[in-house]
Order: sequence, then structure tokens, then C-alpha cells
Amino acid sequence: MLSGRSLYFKAELFQATGAFKIRGACNAVFSLTEEKAARGVATHSSGNHAAALARAAQLRGIPAYVVVPSNTPEIKVDACRSYGVEPIMCEASMAAREAACALVVQDTDATFVPPYNHPLVIAGQGTIALEFLEQVPLLDALIVPVSGGGMISGIAVAARALKPGIKILAAEPVGRNNAADVAASLAAGRLVQLDKPETICDGLQAATGSLTWPIVQQLVDGVLTVCEEEVVAAMRLVMERMKAVVEPSGAAGVAAALGSDMRSRYPELRHVGVVLCGGNLDFGDAFWQSWLARSLTGTQNIPST
Amino acid sequence: MLSGRSLYFKAELFQATGAFKIRGACNAVFSLTEEKAARGVATHSSGNHAAALARAAQLRGIPAYVVVPSNTPEIKVDACRSYGVEPIMCEASMAAREAACALVVQDTDATFVPPYNHPLVIAGQGTIALEFLEQVPLLDALIVPVSGGGMISGIAVAARALKPGIKILAAEPVGRNNAADVAASLAAGRLVQLDKPETICDGLQAATGSLTWPIVQQLVDGVLTVCEEEVVAAMRLVMERMKAVVEPSGAAGVAAALGSDMRSRYPELRHVGVVLCGGNLDFGDAFWQSWLARSLTGTQNIPST
Repeated sequence: MLSGRSLYFKAELFQATGAFKIRGACNAVFSLTEEKAARGVATHSSGNHAAALARAAQLRGIPAYVVVPSNTPEIKVDACRSYGVEPIMCEASMAAREAACALVVQDTDATFVPPYNHPLVIAGQGTIALEFLEQVPLLDALIVPVSGGGMISGIAVAARALKPGIKILAAEPVGRNNAADVAASLAAGRLVQLDKPETICDGLQAATGSLTWPIVQQLVDGVLTVCEEEVVAAMRLVMERMKAVVEPSGAAGVAAALGSDMRSRYPELRHVGVVLCGGNLDFGDAFWQSWLARSLTGTQNIPST
Repeated sequence: MLSGRSLYFKAELFQATGAFKIRGACNAVFSLTEEKAARGVATHSSGNHAAALARAAQLRGIPAYVVVPSNTPEIKVDACRSYGVEPIMCEASMAAREAACALVVQDTDATFVPPYNHPLVIAGQGTIALEFLEQVPLLDALIVPVSGGGMISGIAVAARALKPGIKILAAEPVGRNNAADVAASLAAGRLVQLDKPETICDGLQAATGSLTWPIVQQLVDGVLTVCEEEVVAAMRLVMERMKAVVEPSGAAGVAAALGSDMRSRYPELRHVGVVLCGGNLDFGDAFWQSWLARSLTGTQNIPST
């Protein structure tokens, strides 16, 4: 047993749009009055929240305005288009994103739906815990990757309401630079802002929000930090053994569950739930080209049965 | 809708050992008398059947002897080891495989369990159809990748017994060389042996067996051939959109379902089941090294939410 205990996985990578973000986006979109909904929703995002909001708006049949920075991977821009939304491009800075989004909201009177710092978004992500505890009631801890804190705060509120003794642990990458802001904040006892976070976990670089931080401070029992190599090893394990495509951010919880920190600090936990939060991995052209090359040149000609 | 109809998937890639082969192996192993079982089972294989037989034997607590040609990928040798079986290596030829296996059977009196040409193995693979039709009763066709014919003949027998009008279609790679032996055999009306099949679908290179051919000839309605590029495109689609890791052989059915042959010959089929037969993909060292390199150098530093 690799982890020394039983692990259970919530496979949010199989969600529509390939990540848990659809939960919060749907909760926000379907909570609008008819009148407000008719004017649409707006956000700025370079990641999974953009596609999630586009899909939620499509499901309700209302307009969505998504501002996307110019350095967003084409695969994520295409995801918005596949849900009927043509993204509005802007410069790759937070200031430009916020300005462009504010302009759209002013023009259209659409409702701004932020990626995590919003009660309805937080509550939507919390449904992960409702389902997980219904499916596996004996869980005595949940490991949740943390970024802006929307997912872990929603999960923490829901899980503690259902099972007061359950441990809530955050998985956070140390990164190449300054990615572990939640660990730093909890250690300092106040919200610490770190400059220029850099990690392979591109979905885990956002700063904790003003609404999510108090919940994180009050309900999260501890942070398990993971290094970049541990994240890649966890991706490999999930893809080779579980046959599920996981993005780096999605593998951070697995890395934390298998890490030495978990073993030394929480030996008593027997049944641990891990959230595989997303599977939007861009394999890259080189990967598919190598398979095409293999199809032309061959690597073996012995029947394999 | 990419295919012009509704597709349903049987995800055998999530089976124990990563492929459907565990079904036939378990049926053969658990059908043995106590006395025969105690002497163990034996096979020769360079693919998924080796690991499946090792696992089935481990489940029953009996010895397994697995002869493996020297050019077998390390990942498949390791799979046997993970189920408690140390493979017996031999030269990479069918003659050497058969000779080594015969010797083991002579020495140990173990029962030889072939990968497909055996009634219990065929019947075990047929449970795919039992489950699939129970889960999706409205299916009017099944697309099944074909190699030695064990899976498709088991499925055809079971599916026709439950639903006499159901169409059974084989998906077969044309390959770089001589891979489409079932298409050639059905066209000729007799079992055709093709020399040196070569295709990226390493699991679909075996020749049809003496027991499987009569079933294939009688019950398979048609063969949909796919080229190598279609297989790679199908792998990409499954991995990017369904978030499931699929090996080339496992993607052949998806390629067939999306191909022009299917559209032109079977426009009337509305609800088509596709067997994703295996997910044992070796991503290759270059793939994981590229992720490690990204973790060190970074590709973006804009928060992605």
C-alpha cells in the first residue's frame, strides 16, 4: 500500500469542462433571477473557470462574456468556443483583465461571477463534499488542492456540517517560487500575499480571497506542501495506474497523500478522500507527433496478446 | 455530434490490469478443479494477457508461469511482477515462446491458458456484452476491436443470445503492413493468414484462432478498417475529451465509429456501443521528462483561475 492507508478519489476530472469549476459556475448562474440572468454573466479567467462559466451560461441559455489574457493556452480558448462563447482577449496582466471585465459589465449590465471569491461559487464547490461523504461515509479526512480557496472552503463548510470530526487538509505546491501562500498565511496567522507564484500546477497560483481566507483559517487543519517533482510523480501514477488524465493541479492532492509530511503528521488517519480536481492536460504537439511517427515507422512486429 | 449518432462506451481500460483480458483469464482460472488449480496455470504473452493471468492466479492463490519474449516493454514485465509473478524470459519469436511454455507445462503440469483460442477465455470476454446490454439496453450495434478474435467472438455470442437483431462490427487496423486479416478472411470466406502484421495497435496483431474464426465468420456483420492516423486521432480525442488513458488498440473502435466507412455503410444505426478495450499506454520517458523540465523552468507565471 503506497500511502500506508486507504485512499478514495473524487474524480472531478470527469466533470463537464474537465474540472470541478462547473459546480460553482452552475450554482452562481442558476441562482440568478430571470431578469438578471437575461443580461448574462461575465468573468475574467485564464483557466478552467472560463470554460465552466461559458458552459453554465449555455445550460441556462444566457449570454456569457469571458475576458481571457492573451497568453492563455489555445486549448482553453477553444474550450470556451466549444460552449458557444467567443472570448474577449486582453493583455496578460491582472490589471488589464480586471479593466476589460469591468468595461464589459458596464456595457452589458451582466453579473460578474468571480472564480472563487463569491459565496455562491464557494457553496457550489462544497457539493463535492456532500457527494463524497454520501459515497464514502467512513472518510476521516479530505485532502483538497488549494489555490484561491473556493474549493477547499466550500468543502470544509459542507464536510464539517455533516461530520464535525473530519480533518480538512490542504495540498499546496511549494513551486519554483512563492506558490505556498496558504501555508505561509496559516503559519503567520494572517493573510500573506506572495509575489509572483510559479509552479507547474498552473491552476494553483491564485491568491487566497477575502471571503475564502477566514474559512480556510478557521476550518483547515493543516497544509501539506508538495514539491514539483512529487506532483509530476503523482501525475504519472494516476495516469499509468488509474488510467485517468489528470492535470498537475489535479495531482497535487495525490502527491500530498503519498508524501512524508502526511505519514509523519497524520499516522492515525485510515480512510482519506483525495479530490482529483481537474484533468485539462495539454499533452502537447510533440506527444502526438511521436505517436504519429511510431505509426509510420513501427516499434515492434511481434504479435502482442 | 462527431459521429452522427449516439455512442456509448464500455471502459475496459478501468479494469484490473488495465484491459478486458482479466475477464477471460479469471473465467479460465476459476473454472479449474481444486486439483488442477493447485498445479497452476501457464501462458506465453507479450501483452495484456500475461498480466491478466498473473492477477487471476493471484486472486485464486495458485502459481502462474508466464513466458515473455525478450522484446516485451519493461512496463508489461513489471505488471506481471506487481501481481507476484516473475516472468520467464525467452527469445522474441513465436516458436521460442511456444517451446518455452511447453517446457514449463511439462515440468509443472500447469494448465495452459491461451490468450484467446479457448472456450472459457472466449466466454469470459463475453461478459462485456452481458454488462453492456444490461447498462444500455437500447444499443443496436457494438463496435469491437479485433485481434485473435477472443473478445469479439465472446461478445457476439452473448449479445446475439440477448438481442438477436444487434449488429456486431469489428474494428481492425489496416496498419503499415498486413494487419487487417479479419477483413481479408471475411472477404475470402476462409481463414486468411497474413505475414508480419505491423500496426501501432500492438494489441491487435494476433492471427484469428481456429476456435474464434468460425464464430467471427458466422456472427460478425462487418469489419470497419481504420488507418494509423485515425487511431492516433481517436486516442487524442479520448484522452483530451473523455480524460481516459487509452492505448492504440483501445482507441481503434472509436476511430471506426467516427470513420467514413461507418457513416456510409451503417447510417441507420442510432445507438452504438464501443468497447474501449485497454488503457496500458506507455507514455515514454520523454513525456515525463518534459513535465519535469517544465516544473523547473516554468511556462507561465500568470495566475490561472
